Amino acid sequence: MRSVYVAGIGSTTFGKHLDRSLRSLGAEAVNLALKDAGVDAHAIQAGYCGNALGPMLQEETGVGQHVLWNVGIAGVPIVNVENACASGSTALHLGWQAIAFGIYDLVIVVGVDKAVMPKGTPLRVGAGDMEVRLGDIFPGYFAMVAQKHMEKYGTTLRQMAQISVKNHDNGCLNPFAAFKKPVTVEDVLNSPTIADPITLLSCCPNSDGGAAAVLCSEDWMRKLGVKPIRIAASVLRTGEYQNQRDFTRWEMEETAAQFAYDQAGIGPENLSLVEVHDAFTISEIVHYEGLGLCARGEGGRMIEEGATAIGGRMPVNPSGGLLAKGHPIGASGVGQIAEITLQLRAQAGARQIQGAKTALAQMIGGSKEADSRACNIHILVAD
Amino acid sequence: MRSVYVAGIGSTTFGKHLDRSLRSLGAEAVNLALKDAGVDAHAIQAGYCGNALGPMLQEETGVGQHVLWNVGIAGVPIVNVENACASGSTALHLGWQAIAFGIYDLVIVVGVDKAVMPKGTPLRVGAGDMEVRLGDIFPGYFAMVAQKHMEKYGTTLRQMAQISVKNHDNGCLNPFAAFKKPVTVEDVLNSPTIADPITLLSCCPNSDGGAAAVLCSEDWMRKLGVKPIRIAASVLRTGEYQNQRDFTRWEMEETAAQFAYDQAGIGPENLSLVEVHDAFTISEIVHYEGLGLCARGEGGRMIEEGATAIGGRMPVNPSGGLLAKGHPIGASGVGQIAEITLQLRAQAGARQIQGAKTALAQMIGGSKEADSRACNIHILVAD
Repeated sequence: MRSVYVAGIGSTTFGKHLDRSLRSLGAEAVNLALKDAGVDAHAIQAGYCGNALGPMLQEETGVGQHVLWNVGIAGVPIVNVENACASGSTALHLGWQAIAFGIYDLVIVVGVDKAVMPKGTPLRVGAGDMEVRLGDIFPGYFAMVAQKHMEKYGTTLRQMAQISVKNHDNGCLNPFAAFKKPVTVEDVLNSPTIADPITLLSCCPNSDGGAAAVLCSEDWMRKLGVKPIRIAASVLRTGEYQNQRDFTRWEMEETAAQFAYDQAGIGPENLSLVEVHDAFTISEIVHYEGLGLCARGEGGRMIEEGATAIGGRMPVNPSGGLLAKGHPIGASGVGQIAEITLQLRAQAGARQIQGAKTALAQMIGGSKEADSRACNIHILVAD
Repeated sequence: MRSVYVAGIGSTTFGKHLDRSLRSLGAEAVNLALKDAGVDAHAIQAGYCGNALGPMLQEETGVGQHVLWNVGIAGVPIVNVENACASGSTALHLGWQAIAFGIYDLVIVVGVDKAVMPKGTPLRVGAGDMEVRLGDIFPGYFAMVAQKHMEKYGTTLRQMAQISVKNHDNGCLNPFAAFKKPVTVEDVLNSPTIADPITLLSCCPNSDGGAAAVLCSEDWMRKLGVKPIRIAASVLRTGEYQNQRDFTRWEMEETAAQFAYDQAGIGPENLSLVEVHDAFTISEIVHYEGLGLCARGEGGRMIEEGATAIGGRMPVNPSGGLLAKGHPIGASGVGQIAEITLQLRAQAGARQIQGAKTALAQMIGGSKEADSRACNIHILVAD
């Protein structure tokens, strides 16, 4: 298997872009990534586009073709990928595979979505599912996860709120973030209840945005003269039968993490920072445990101790995460790669993790049923 | 690059399945393909699902996970692919790549869609595009292709109608076909005009259906003891800038065909049969020319001479094609592979092409703009 490098990254700001199209957001990110890599659009050999909601909300298909045509990438193979919230990270996985296994030497990966809905309009993800039609939507499911985690491990409302506080603090340091306003534990606890114990400030916002990454072989990395940010692991797993046994964990994630650590030849103790899919505050706590950043049931204490803040022993979501940076569904997974690449290059400005050498990005997607989930883990290393 | 084999194929009938879900149709096809290959679901290492309309029409995402979970394939990487009509064939291309380049040894590819609409409801494909909103939908675009082909090459209404007659004749021989009723040239010419000169019987029907293929390495092919049906070429190309120069051709298709012939080391003269994307009668004529089955402008004469009928010198769409077999968008490309595999195994019953050794399948997808198109060419060989 060949080494794969992130040669360039680009991102729009995440947030409300009501007046912009998918192709405009995607093209901005791709152009920035090409420029960052110092590579011409015509050199790109293939494109992978992660988009989750375009067909449903914009009645648009062929999003990758639309985006890439607009930046001068045409003719080459383009694949549109949908794996819910893991759409962008799955596109990245395919791009990584293509280079690792010698299919191509230089590819573009783009994630883009427009998820901001008119006020009062529900986001109809999974609306084809019986349970969803009956009201068992995401906040309801994650509320059950939170209730069970509180019951089983003594996790507190205050600990969960601290996730939101930390990520909003980090968002204030990130020019790409949708929210750049700090919140307090009291703000989170006192914000309107969505599904007990999930409050408004415990939920990530639907966002619009695009993110892109140029991936390349070692030869291209040298030719372009870019800093060697290597993808040391790229894993995709989907829902397993045993995922339904316990509300407080996603075994798929644990398997994916183990595969990724094995592939990279490291353990969680070697990570400088982590970006996770904090769709709800409880999610981040479960991901601490699923990724082995702490023992099972210790996630609540981990945030309470400040271990995952910038400057802590294991910073998580220095970007602000989905909670503050925002969540343009198909773009989020690629956005994480943009963030950790900046961190590993020591270009992350005010939110820089000092001496960052190894970083992990985790995405989980799909409706709450195990049979529609996907999980990606990527580990990047500054060589 | 390693040899890749089709170990098993499966398909539902194409047509109206109003009472069935995407997962039910997909699972039927996958179960048939697994049984055909003699392989256990748990041996499958990855899944690629082509689906174009699920999110738009069924408000369903994660279709591949839904389908494969239902047949006992869980945990392994699953990727949902959208490339319009080329969704299934793009999934096949990714599956082929995965084995050819040593990523996996045994994968499942499934295509599935439900495209039958309630009477009077338009199929909102591309409805995000300005031109489509203004009324420039598929029949309108293909009517312009037909008008230009008639003007430039003298192609006649009668020749175009003969495509429909041939494919309906073939459909009568195919138990999987949506339409099993012959039509005459007069029936086609006298059916209601949709967009002059496109009549109702010049258009393929929206259909529901699923198709699947088990792909494997040479080792698995021997282990399973299946007939060696080898994928000698698999190509994906997307819209090129020069595609807008001429209404009577798709240069993307010509490039893809050349790449495929080079990859397989053969020319069109070596083909025993061809399946093409005959969304409209004029499409099949243009594809004859684009694939090099005849000289440019000779497509009309090729059908008139009977060359592409079963028993002709170059049978095209012995399955009945999209026109008679039907067009469940994301399933159609995988359905073609099921058909040509049967042909190369001499298992195609009444529509068998005698002595079939080499077959080509062509899919083209996307709205009429060059910037959203995709084209796949696959060449299969009975070794």
